[in-house]
Amino acid sequence: MGHTPATASRDALRAANLRRLLNPASIAFIGGRSIAGAVQRCRDFGFTGDIYLVNPTHAEIDGVRCYASITELPSAPDAVFVAVPAAQTVGVVRDLAARGAGGAVAYASGFSEMGGDGAALQASLLEAAGDMAVLGPNCYGLLNGLNGSALWPVAHGAARVDEGVAVITQSGNLAYNLSMSSRTVPFAYLVSVGNQAMVDVALLIDAFLDNPKVRAIGVHLEGLKNVHAFSAAAARALARGVPIVALKSGVSKLGAQLALSHTSSLAGSDALYDALFKRLGIIRVKDPVSLVETLKFLSLGGVPKNGKLAALATSGGDAGLVADLAETHGIEFPPVSAQGRATLQQVLPAYANIANPLDFTTTPWGNPDAMRVCCDALLSDGPGAAAMILDYPKESTGERPDCDIAAHAFADSARRHGVIGAIISVFPDLTPPEHAAQMAAAGVAPLQGLSDGIAAIGAAMWYGATRSRILEADSLSALPVLQAGQGTGSSRLYDEWDSKRMLAEYGLTVPASERVAPANAPAAAQRLGFPVCVKIVSEQLPHKTEAGAVALKLDSPQAVAQAVERMTQSVAQYAPEVKVERILVERMAGATILELIVGIKREEDFGLALVLGSGGVLVELIRDTATLLLPVREEDVRAALLGLKLAPLLTGYRGGPHADLDAVVHNVMAIARFAQAHADRLMELDVNPLLVLEHDAVAVDALIRLDA
Amino acid sequence: MGHTPATASRDALRAANLRRLLNPASIAFIGGRSIAGAVQRCRDFGFTGDIYLVNPTHAEIDGVRCYASITELPSAPDAVFVAVPAAQTVGVVRDLAARGAGGAVAYASGFSEMGGDGAALQASLLEAAGDMAVLGPNCYGLLNGLNGSALWPVAHGAARVDEGVAVITQSGNLAYNLSMSSRTVPFAYLVSVGNQAMVDVALLIDAFLDNPKVRAIGVHLEGLKNVHAFSAAAARALARGVPIVALKSGVSKLGAQLALSHTSSLAGSDALYDALFKRLGIIRVKDPVSLVETLKFLSLGGVPKNGKLAALATSGGDAGLVADLAETHGIEFPPVSAQGRATLQQVLPAYANIANPLDFTTTPWGNPDAMRVCCDALLSDGPGAAAMILDYPKESTGERPDCDIAAHAFADSARRHGVIGAIISVFPDLTPPEHAAQMAAAGVAPLQGLSDGIAAIGAAMWYGATRSRILEADSLSALPVLQAGQGTGSSRLYDEWDSKRMLAEYGLTVPASERVAPANAPAAAQRLGFPVCVKIVSEQLPHKTEAGAVALKLDSPQAVAQAVERMTQSVAQYAPEVKVERILVERMAGATILELIVGIKREEDFGLALVLGSGGVLVELIRDTATLLLPVREEDVRAALLGLKLAPLLTGYRGGPHADLDAVVHNVMAIARFAQAHADRLMELDVNPLLVLEHDAVAVDALIRLDA
Repeated sequence: MGHTPATASRDALRAANLRRLLNPASIAFIGGRSIAGAVQRCRDFGFTGDIYLVNPTHAEIDGVRCYASITELPSAPDAVFVAVPAAQTVGVVRDLAARGAGGAVAYASGFSEMGGDGAALQASLLEAAGDMAVLGPNCYGLLNGLNGSALWPVAHGAARVDEGVAVITQSGNLAYNLSMSSRTVPFAYLVSVGNQAMVDVALLIDAFLDNPKVRAIGVHLEGLKNVHAFSAAAARALARGVPIVALKSGVSKLGAQLALSHTSSLAGSDALYDALFKRLGIIRVKDPVSLVETLKFLSLGGVPKNGKLAALATSGGDAGLVADLAETHGIEFPPVSAQGRATLQQVLPAYANIANPLDFTTTPWGNPDAMRVCCDALLSDGPGAAAMILDYPKESTGERPDCDIAAHAFADSARRHGVIGAIISVFPDLTPPEHAAQMAAAGVAPLQGLSDGIAAIGAAMWYGATRSRILEADSLSALPVLQAGQGTGSSRLYDEWDSKRMLAEYGLTVPASERVAPANAPAAAQRLGFPVCVKIVSEQLPHKTEAGAVALKLDSPQAVAQAVERMTQSVAQYAPEVKVERILVERMAGATILELIVGIKREEDFGLALVLGSGGVLVELIRDTATLLLPVREEDVRAALLGLKLAPLLTGYRGGPHADLDAVVHNVMAIARFAQAHADRLMELDVNPLLVLEHDAVAVDALIRLDA
Repeated sequence: MGHTPATASRDALRAANLRRLLNPASIAFIGGRSIAGAVQRCRDFGFTGDIYLVNPTHAEIDGVRCYASITELPSAPDAVFVAVPAAQTVGVVRDLAARGAGGAVAYASGFSEMGGDGAALQASLLEAAGDMAVLGPNCYGLLNGLNGSALWPVAHGAARVDEGVAVITQSGNLAYNLSMSSRTVPFAYLVSVGNQAMVDVALLIDAFLDNPKVRAIGVHLEGLKNVHAFSAAAARALARGVPIVALKSGVSKLGAQLALSHTSSLAGSDALYDALFKRLGIIRVKDPVSLVETLKFLSLGGVPKNGKLAALATSGGDAGLVADLAETHGIEFPPVSAQGRATLQQVLPAYANIANPLDFTTTPWGNPDAMRVCCDALLSDGPGAAAMILDYPKESTGERPDCDIAAHAFADSARRHGVIGAIISVFPDLTPPEHAAQMAAAGVAPLQGLSDGIAAIGAAMWYGATRSRILEADSLSALPVLQAGQGTGSSRLYDEWDSKRMLAEYGLTVPASERVAPANAPAAAQRLGFPVCVKIVSEQLPHKTEAGAVALKLDSPQAVAQAVERMTQSVAQYAPEVKVERILVERMAGATILELIVGIKREEDFGLALVLGSGGVLVELIRDTATLLLPVREEDVRAALLGLKLAPLLTGYRGGPHADLDAVVHNVMAIARFAQAHADRLMELDVNPLLVLEHDAVAVDALIRLDA
């Protein structure tokens, strides 16, 4: 992927043009009468730069002067909203590029999402744009809450912010609803990407990373067009410490079909996305509300420095629910310190259960000093985050001031202790907007809904821990996934002997063995030492066991001779075309602790995936596998091994032997290194089984297929 | 549990008194000055019956006349809110009982939740109440949305309804917040149960089942005081078709500790609650919002007649999310029929993806006829439920009328096709109250939040399927769990021989065997036929394998004799106190398809639990077990077996043999029948392993412990 100076400068030019589109000082709208509304909405949003209207047939629309053509514009606009039909969009974009515009939103549909002629039209659009940034086509455009620019065809409900989150979505409707929902999320940018003909999710992430006002990035994906570019951008985000939160649909089979039909995005199985997100420290959420709450916590609060939560509630019921919900996210609750307990005993009734989460009862309710004592007692022990569970009653009850006392005591305590805080209402609608605004201003995230709120905190803690782990291992540069070759359609299968030799060069442990003519097998066995196994090797015979071409646990030269004879007859029946010319004789390994399978699969767009799992007859039933994308790091392999359901067998289960875990990791890494070195040609690789022994690990069978 | 006529009539009297408390025609409030607010709130809620105020020192409070004592009341009130300190509550309740009041809410805390003296005070309270119903103590009381009675100490936000849901909660705070949340849930009753000294969850469920205006019941539990009574009430609810939705906290270890401390409810492991809920068709939810949304769907919509959903959305993004979220709840999406496809093609653009869930695009938007066609095309094929995903934009956009068109077309189509309908907003706050009210009036549940909304529909479908299955099996009467004896603390362990004989009487299949003196073992083996296994049996030797007291696969009389000799020496070392007097000689079973473990555990309050699972060395690692409460039904055992991870081994896995599933079920039922017959004495029972064979199942080892 070496860039020539020419492509590097083109990339820089395009990036600069994308920045102009995202943060324009001047905007043009091109379209019919209905476009005047968009101009007004842009003004209403507080955009203070120049706004031009282009329409060839009207001198003015709704009192706004129209320029008859792009060439007549007084200056080259930074951003243009193009709302003309698909066929005309190409010409308009060409004129804009010629005029030196920064970028355009191509609103029209009728491009590649239609297939056929639409795809050709989209290619023309790209060609016409040159180095100008084009968002879409088939998209709603973008809202910039920082400078008030709204390149947007319809109403929106977004507010202006000083800093906040950037959300990139494949669904214009989701962006629309996100802007309408009143959840105190500071949207710095809302971008609907449509067909991503040019400006894709990766380019946008890169652009947002340049802006320190973007504290977190949300992405809604139905599929990725360019996994490598996305992973590279996400790795940069991780380096910078800007969390990415992803809502990926197409988890279910039906959902994946719908996504394919909707966006023609290439999918890849959902497990690959999971592997991708985990590797890159990308937080994955299950629905739009969870996306919003997580972004809210990250942008208004931040990333907790550890996984410990201090929680306070005004009822035992709420405290119990917090404990339950937090457990599923791995959140820890440090016990209340002796000092904290002592101070709490002074303000709480005798029957209070002093614990974390704390049910502070109604006794300190309405008492600022007592509330402060409660908060301080829990927040002073260095938790990574703190949460107060608080539902505001209806205004008419007159009881809201007591809630304010609790909320402000909490916010104040969080500030004094430098702890990231969240106020969570069990019912989303029991967070009044004015309270939410006050909390946000105080740096406390007003989270709405207990499940989503706790999930948001847990996700932020996971992000912090994952990022630290990757930074400590200094393996940021290994995060982007490989780009694998496409394959020519013609490939060669290597037999077991050759496959093992090729992998052994990269460090795979294989049994002592010889490949000999059938008549020489007994002598070879004698040289290797008993017991041995013998197999017929031939590229034409990948399924040796089914062909009866394997014999195990042979104890004598006679047994070897008989086995070779038997196997030869069996193969003659099973596959008459195979000539039995070479016999593999192998010394058998000792007592096996666990059988593993290690495979490499070529996954379109995702490069190569390493699948690691328990082998043997039950493997399908217990589905004990882990998927890792290449390049893979040693620590990932070790973690994946120890995450297997049968992993306890590796560490002395029920008084059994301990496995040589280092040897297992070494062997898996050997396979991975081979795959990485042959990424352009490797079509398929299987080591099955990799036997885990007490003092070693050994690959008993292997198969490689390379592109020709 | 035979009732004498006297206890039966007392139960009837108490039930009648509880009905008076829940549905009062007259209410008294007893307490200090602050109680006047409660009177006013009761009036504001629209209660039209008599309201009395009792206070010995004031002639009137806030203009309301006070009676000086209970005896002076003009009539015996149906319901009384008692807001005096704990110590005085007992006397007041005694006077009320004497006066003939129906029931009282004991608001004060300071009873059994304090332990010690508090428990004694609570006993006095119970004694004082006699047959009068007492709710609490240590509770908020109750709100009745049907008749406007509010026996409630603080503000509430509940509305009047004609019919709806009854919610029973152990947390007053949750009831308070439930009433404040604006989610269009019709609350017929909201009850805070506090310490449940007398009126517990089971009695309330029974009382609500008498009222046809209660369409569903919600329960928030930290633990159950009386599992048997609860299960009996829940079984009656299932018979009547009134769904119960449970939010049970204490799922996590920390949560369980908090629940114990908060309510002193006996817990039992969360897996037992899961087993209890599944058996009784009780829907389990994860948080209060999910509780509300599920109750909303059940009360405004109903129980779907099948598990098929027709879903419509205005964007591909939403449609994809619906598919993903629905999959986790087992919801099916029937494909669009040919006729439906043909009509949709007339109103949708060419690029539309005609599928279920349907992204109907923006083309029919605002067009009532086109929207009707879309809805009809999906709803006419007999789905159990239908959902439209719809988020209203802000009022200021002027775009809400188009949303109304879509919503009304959907509601109308649902009505015409007799399909239970829900409108779901992705963002909970994008369901405007007036729209929600219109939908509710039209019998369409306005669900808020995509995850919770889809979960609610899935839960209702699960309930419908579960109820049908139980009704078809005619096994309603078997639903309540056993009441097991408490145990005397002294128990007897039976050896393998005795245990097997006792279980064989109930139909357990055991190997052909003889129990003989050591010297006679070879002859016994000859009679039984080889191969055999031999074991030393002794009640003093429950761990035979560890003691070296088992020998398998013996092929000859000589081998048997040698084995007996070896085992005798081994036991002499391992457990010198054991006299080797009896040898069990057993014919060995044929090829084993799967090893199972079947155990019975005594679980406080839950009676007896049958644990069924995969056995062998990996059992702990893959945790392949199911827990069923007794009495157990044959269909439950079969379902549990087929739900095991290793179940595919039973049905011809990878070309392997099919197991005799009927024989397995027969044997598990034999164990269950034995346990049920000995429920008062059984402390422990283990059959490990139960070997599953191709033409049989056989119990190879067994152990029983009975109370003495």
